Amino acid sequence: MSIMLADECMEDLQLEGLMLLQKKGGFRFGTDAVLLADFAKDAPSKRTVDLCTGTGVIPILLSAKTNTPKIYGVEIQPDIADMARRSVEYNGLFPRVEIIEGDLKNCASYLGRGSFDKVVCNPPYMKVSAAIKNLDDAKTISRHEVMCTLDDVMHTAAQLLVPKGRLFMVHRPQRLADIFCSMRAHKIEPKKLRTVAPRRGKAPNLVLVEGMYQGGEELRLLPELYIFDEIGNYSSEVNKIYNRKC
Amino acid sequence: MSIMLADECMEDLQLEGLMLLQKKGGFRFGTDAVLLADFAKDAPSKRTVDLCTGTGVIPILLSAKTNTPKIYGVEIQPDIADMARRSVEYNGLFPRVEIIEGDLKNCASYLGRGSFDKVVCNPPYMKVSAAIKNLDDAKTISRHEVMCTLDDVMHTAAQLLVPKGRLFMVHRPQRLADIFCSMRAHKIEPKKLRTVAPRRGKAPNLVLVEGMYQGGEELRLLPELYIFDEIGNYSSEVNKIYNRKC
Repeated sequence: MSIMLADECMEDLQLEGLMLLQKKGGFRFGTDAVLLADFAKDAPSKRTVDLCTGTGVIPILLSAKTNTPKIYGVEIQPDIADMARRSVEYNGLFPRVEIIEGDLKNCASYLGRGSFDKVVCNPPYMKVSAAIKNLDDAKTISRHEVMCTLDDVMHTAAQLLVPKGRLFMVHRPQRLADIFCSMRAHKIEPKKLRTVAPRRGKAPNLVLVEGMYQGGEELRLLPELYIFDEIGNYSSEVNKIYNRKC
Repeated sequence: MSIMLADECMEDLQLEGLMLLQKKGGFRFGTDAVLLADFAKDAPSKRTVDLCTGTGVIPILLSAKTNTPKIYGVEIQPDIADMARRSVEYNGLFPRVEIIEGDLKNCASYLGRGSFDKVVCNPPYMKVSAAIKNLDDAKTISRHEVMCTLDDVMHTAAQLLVPKGRLFMVHRPQRLADIFCSMRAHKIEPKKLRTVAPRRGKAPNLVLVEGMYQGGEELRLLPELYIFDEIGNYSSEVNKIYNRKC
């Protein structure tokens, strides 16, 4: 059997030769996933899980950026989970990286309560609105809170994390009050916030948030991250994150 | 009677000839108050109140930056309230600007519930810790939550505001989760957030927050504001806020 289905393509992650399968017309991993993997890489971890893993891009990037011995990715859509699993196998990362097909809402029951020191999540950004027609469309599920809400993510993260374990998340700035309030409601204390703007002088369009389960109150704002410099090239920091030579 | 006491000095606000009395060795108004007055100026208002007004700098600046017909400032410390009142009189702003000596925790009873469309506040930034010795020192009261907490401010703002009325606040980034969670708990929905950094590439050290009482969920992050440019001069935006010619 070929590793790649007819509606899939293989993308070079430009990091230690890693490759990633994606659906040709489907939801593709973006800058947000790459930024999140980089944001999450420095905290040491023995056991990491990526919720809403999709293509598995974050566990695969974290395998190269960290020495974490076990990294799970949880994905609810069977065909996407299968594709992520094939990417992991293609890169020879199994069993260090393991994709679980399942609903994050009950994953503490099979992954183990209080058994992770790091939870990572690039969740669907948008609330479900009446305007959405195709609730079972794969792109809709990746972008909208059809299968899980922000509260579901926080509830599960709090179940999975050991005390002082860390949650790393990327999201839209519009949801920042929702994020902080949901974190607090689940005893995940916001510890770091980094805003990400397309360029200097522009409004941020992403936020990177780090929280600590049962952590003390001590939020730190980091210097803003810019994607592009003044003349429209990737900023030096983004080039570094992407491992590009400038 | 002289307008100025022996321990006071008069400062030129460099805005329409306005002057401000301050205590020589006491808490002086800072960039945060100037930024807050500017941040709050554009929303139209018929009745504004500034909580924790201190020297009265924000009501006095708002008198020049807006056409709001009535602006109150509430200050709990009698000698500071008296000094603020003398500044208002010196500038000929009474009765358009009126300083009330009182505790913000019960000011809805004498200023009127639901009678303001704009509440402004530059509150004490720091929580009270065991390390603080002089709880009745004027500087300590201005900087630490001795006389009022963030929750007290939100509780009072929610009492004072009409539905859809706006709260404008400046605070430290460390308290951002506290601010959003306290706002939500008092039905003041966070609407705008602007981070303020000393210069590009540095972490923000102030946040400007706008909320709306009984408003819908719709948070917008604004482009970051820088105090200084690359060579250490005030940025062009800060010069504009201070009415300085560059």
